[in-house]
Amino acid sequence: MRYISRLPFDHPLPWPRSIALMGSTGSIGSSTLRVLDAWEKGRLSRTRGDAGEFRVSALAGGRNIKLLAEQAERWRPPVLALRDKEGEYGIDALKKLLPSGYRPDIVAGPEGFAAIPARDDVDIVLSAQVGAAGLGATVSAAEAGKVICLANKESLVLAGPLLRSICERTGALILPVDSEHNALFQCMTGRRAEEIRSLILTASGGPFRGRTREELKNVRPEHALRHPNWSMGAKITIDSATLMNKGLEVIEACYLYDMPQSEVQVAVHPQSVVHSLVELKDGAVMAQLAVPDMRLPIAACLAWPFMLEDAIPRLNLLACGPLGFEAPDTEVFPCLDLARRALDEGKTVELNAANEIAVERFLKNDIAFLDIPDLVHTILEACSGFEPPLADTPAQTRSALDGILARDSHTRQQAAAWRA
Amino acid sequence: MRYISRLPFDHPLPWPRSIALMGSTGSIGSSTLRVLDAWEKGRLSRTRGDAGEFRVSALAGGRNIKLLAEQAERWRPPVLALRDKEGEYGIDALKKLLPSGYRPDIVAGPEGFAAIPARDDVDIVLSAQVGAAGLGATVSAAEAGKVICLANKESLVLAGPLLRSICERTGALILPVDSEHNALFQCMTGRRAEEIRSLILTASGGPFRGRTREELKNVRPEHALRHPNWSMGAKITIDSATLMNKGLEVIEACYLYDMPQSEVQVAVHPQSVVHSLVELKDGAVMAQLAVPDMRLPIAACLAWPFMLEDAIPRLNLLACGPLGFEAPDTEVFPCLDLARRALDEGKTVELNAANEIAVERFLKNDIAFLDIPDLVHTILEACSGFEPPLADTPAQTRSALDGILARDSHTRQQAAAWRA
Repeated sequence: MRYISRLPFDHPLPWPRSIALMGSTGSIGSSTLRVLDAWEKGRLSRTRGDAGEFRVSALAGGRNIKLLAEQAERWRPPVLALRDKEGEYGIDALKKLLPSGYRPDIVAGPEGFAAIPARDDVDIVLSAQVGAAGLGATVSAAEAGKVICLANKESLVLAGPLLRSICERTGALILPVDSEHNALFQCMTGRRAEEIRSLILTASGGPFRGRTREELKNVRPEHALRHPNWSMGAKITIDSATLMNKGLEVIEACYLYDMPQSEVQVAVHPQSVVHSLVELKDGAVMAQLAVPDMRLPIAACLAWPFMLEDAIPRLNLLACGPLGFEAPDTEVFPCLDLARRALDEGKTVELNAANEIAVERFLKNDIAFLDIPDLVHTILEACSGFEPPLADTPAQTRSALDGILARDSHTRQQAAAWRA
Repeated sequence: MRYISRLPFDHPLPWPRSIALMGSTGSIGSSTLRVLDAWEKGRLSRTRGDAGEFRVSALAGGRNIKLLAEQAERWRPPVLALRDKEGEYGIDALKKLLPSGYRPDIVAGPEGFAAIPARDDVDIVLSAQVGAAGLGATVSAAEAGKVICLANKESLVLAGPLLRSICERTGALILPVDSEHNALFQCMTGRRAEEIRSLILTASGGPFRGRTREELKNVRPEHALRHPNWSMGAKITIDSATLMNKGLEVIEACYLYDMPQSEVQVAVHPQSVVHSLVELKDGAVMAQLAVPDMRLPIAACLAWPFMLEDAIPRLNLLACGPLGFEAPDTEVFPCLDLARRALDEGKTVELNAANEIAVERFLKNDIAFLDIPDLVHTILEACSGFEPPLADTPAQTRSALDGILARDSHTRQQAAAWRA
């Protein structure tokens, strides 16, 4: 195991810390602002050292410009970003929603997003956009040598080796916001790489755990969107229902922690109390437990290597009920194995693109729930794998990124054209 | 929280490491020799660094001189210790059992035991005697500034503050062999003291979990000795059945980790897979899981800060069955609360002495199972607490130890005279 970036225990992260929030209007973005709000109002305290301070230096949203404007009014960052340059959700529309006297820079589109992490007034980049769209900002942050709080797992799924090579060169630091990967990170605290044997990612099993394929034939989006334990965005909730989310997380864990996928196991744990486990070579297994609340991993990343106290409610172990662990049903939920296969065969870009389109089509009632793995499977069968690119220079990074995005875009077209 | 001794991450512990095994013929002692045997036969490997080597420099047993002689023949330490100087289990009897050509020093009695940890050829003292009898060797090891692998929890129950003050002065290091306290230690790896909110000790609940007082009226020793998960000596098995073991462990944890007892909780966890948990201030809870096998904490202490690989079989999380946690039943098992009260009132010496005699009497069918807490309760009611002694010099240590042993001995007389 060799962690994706260097993690000196006493990293010289400055206070105050200025945060660029990429994907501020999504679920992770909103939770992050709740953490910062609680911090600012003194409801959290920080362990050790002088009192620190967080600043929001950028908010980047999609088309929910009303919420983006509200967030901007509260936090007054010097720069805002949104998806569209013009039109109903464009720059001018956003400007009209902002209070008078507050005149931030406003940028739009992929180039605008990618420019933010490189700014001098940004220390920490929270990469929390949904899907492959988040890759540009993550890579830009890595090239700029920033601290990256990574919620966008697609960045690693699409470009794990590339990000590893950039972090190596620039000294950028990646901290995992995904609750499972953050749990692994916590379980590894103070451990040497050579002490770690395997990683065990827990999975809630989603709303359809225990069902047969027959029972899943007529599942509609509203059923799949009812996650038992976590409140998340639509895309990731569907991914949880198909177990593709766990497949993407296996890939993320392999690249983050430099582990062979044979040493990254998945255990279905319906209570979502144990967020993941690390098996040590002496036979001990370290686990992290907590109430399921994304504010914990978010706070852990923002404050690292310190801790924000009372980020979430305390866990009452006696009230959790028995904690169960079972093997995932890969017959009914083939996406986990599809992801493992894609990682083996160098097809993770195609896996992700096909799945994003499949989920989009399912949410539009265009394909059935069970079509999602079928679509992904067909795409993986048809494409050929590739050696993930690395980059020794920013120019190589741009070229590698172009290659990845071309494969991504090509796959999306195929996936959009797929018929059951 | 301030750990009982200084724990620099890279402690200059030497290789080879010479171990004095105090209590070699007991359960922990035998398990320790199994670990060393596996190590010597190359069935374990050590993480990081040059290949190390363990040596046994002393074996100290009680009256099982046959086993002691077998162990001595295998390990050939330069010194042996046993309880009796003369008689059936004395020095001459032991000498007859030793192979010709092997002529170790043999010492006997408390003074003999106490002399061993101070020897120059001892690096690590494994303190694994049963009961208050282990205190002398632990204190002697602390005064000599040695690394103490502490299985004898009574050392801390009787003299926690004293041992803290000695370790502070001599630089002695205490590593916890008790599976729960070692689990806490593992959960705290890499954590700063100020990040820790509370400790949660797990308890199997023993063989009588779920029973009523009525049902426990006629319990006989053979019932109480059937522990569901752990194979241990008789004294600790009875203590598990009464929950006094967990009470002693709460006291041990408070002194080891400098925690107020309000922050040391107990959760009954019948599966004995989670060995204990540490609640962090941000809301996360770290847990250590493993198959119940004392070779894990023993190996962890002996090799610290390294790790012996494959010390125990791997845990199969999927085969553990659901893991449950419940509050202890302090009505049926009052010993836990008696221990908490004794800690509050400065009566831990009396608690332990009364309990040792009560267990001894129960094992001899002299008193009933439910008499154990009644006897301890009566003793605690009758005695007055005392401020635990500290020691700035070896002379003060001797005087403090005398005071503790006088209280211990006085209580034993009272407990022996107690009538239901």
